[in-house]
Amino acid sequence: MSKYQYPDADLQAVYRVINERRDMRHFAGGEVDEETLLKLFSAAHAAPSVGLMQPWRFVRITDPSLRQDLYTLVDEERKETAKALKEREDEFMQLKVEGLLDCAELIVVTLSDNREQFIFGRRTMPYMDLASASCAIQNMWLAARAEGLGMGWVSIFNPEALKTLLGMPEECMPIAILCLGPVDEFYEKPMLSIEDWDHRNLLEDHIMENQWNEHSSSPRKQNQE
Amino acid sequence: MSKYQYPDADLQAVYRVINERRDMRHFAGGEVDEETLLKLFSAAHAAPSVGLMQPWRFVRITDPSLRQDLYTLVDEERKETAKALKEREDEFMQLKVEGLLDCAELIVVTLSDNREQFIFGRRTMPYMDLASASCAIQNMWLAARAEGLGMGWVSIFNPEALKTLLGMPEECMPIAILCLGPVDEFYEKPMLSIEDWDHRNLLEDHIMENQWNEHSSSPRKQNQE
Repeated sequence: MSKYQYPDADLQAVYRVINERRDMRHFAGGEVDEETLLKLFSAAHAAPSVGLMQPWRFVRITDPSLRQDLYTLVDEERKETAKALKEREDEFMQLKVEGLLDCAELIVVTLSDNREQFIFGRRTMPYMDLASASCAIQNMWLAARAEGLGMGWVSIFNPEALKTLLGMPEECMPIAILCLGPVDEFYEKPMLSIEDWDHRNLLEDHIMENQWNEHSSSPRKQNQE
Repeated sequence: MSKYQYPDADLQAVYRVINERRDMRHFAGGEVDEETLLKLFSAAHAAPSVGLMQPWRFVRITDPSLRQDLYTLVDEERKETAKALKEREDEFMQLKVEGLLDCAELIVVTLSDNREQFIFGRRTMPYMDLASASCAIQNMWLAARAEGLGMGWVSIFNPEALKTLLGMPEECMPIAILCLGPVDEFYEKPMLSIEDWDHRNLLEDHIMENQWNEHSSSPRKQNQE
């Protein structure tokens, strides 16, 4: 055991939040107090980033008409996605995929407009700043869950239209519309699993040794979910 | 306060691990026991994913000669990155950017080879599975820190060369070489900040309201770091 291991109660709290975090689409209105919101942003800002570039930028949406515009944007893409899903179109249209109008806070996350200045850790893989910003969002998600708040990451939108709407420079790349706030209850397991859209894979099918394994192409599903 | 808020001690543990997680490049050899390793993979597997696609695949490197090959691959790209950094080439070459030969466990993470089957949440932004896999890695990173283990995410490599080395199908996209294991000590702040490569930005420069702000292009740096 490492001397740096957390006391057991703290360690369990970390695993608890990792397992209880959910992608929420049902919200109970209400509000998030400013102090808590700042703690969540600070959690995001504590994330790792390639070459310490800190590519995450947050646009808090407080204008109700702008929220409505964002909702319209998401709803348009929702219909396009449904069409693209062909035989699953109707099934998809039945799913609740966002909570933009019901959540207390709406936050757009974009990659910075100075992305191309950064080479460290992304010369061969320029999209690695998306990885960093995603770690920031995951931090925020976990902190929100521990605060008793739900969060949902919506990626169903046309990024160019969103840039135009928020006056973002060309080099920006919006990656998330985050819905955040109080919820009536947290899903016991992923909502898409409850709704039978898909199920958790067996972890063992995701782990290989030294070389790619064929079974990793089509993991089996857990019976429990 | 939400009725779902964690007890204060648990809440503090969550913030503690978010703030104490570091991108480690210095490792103390040793080993990670199988049970702990499985807990870390399970933490990763609890991550959110677009349309529940669970795009993360892990290749655990146990073959010493393969580890050496991976090191060579990273070292080649390290030199290419240095050249591309031009006036900061020498400074970059002085930095320790990976711990591939010293860490207890080496794990390659790739996106799945069946990416294109999934449309939900990525029709307009096909790279969103990278976001999901990054959340999985962040979960693993936090769990490792709570277990007292260091982790580093190396993205300095040619992804096509890595695919060839591990026999990955064309559609795979490796995104990380994770170095994991015991460390002598954790950095007090990001190593790139200690080494004066760059510094943490002021959080307030990352937060906007309703529209893009000019100051978000070039955030100010914190004096403390």
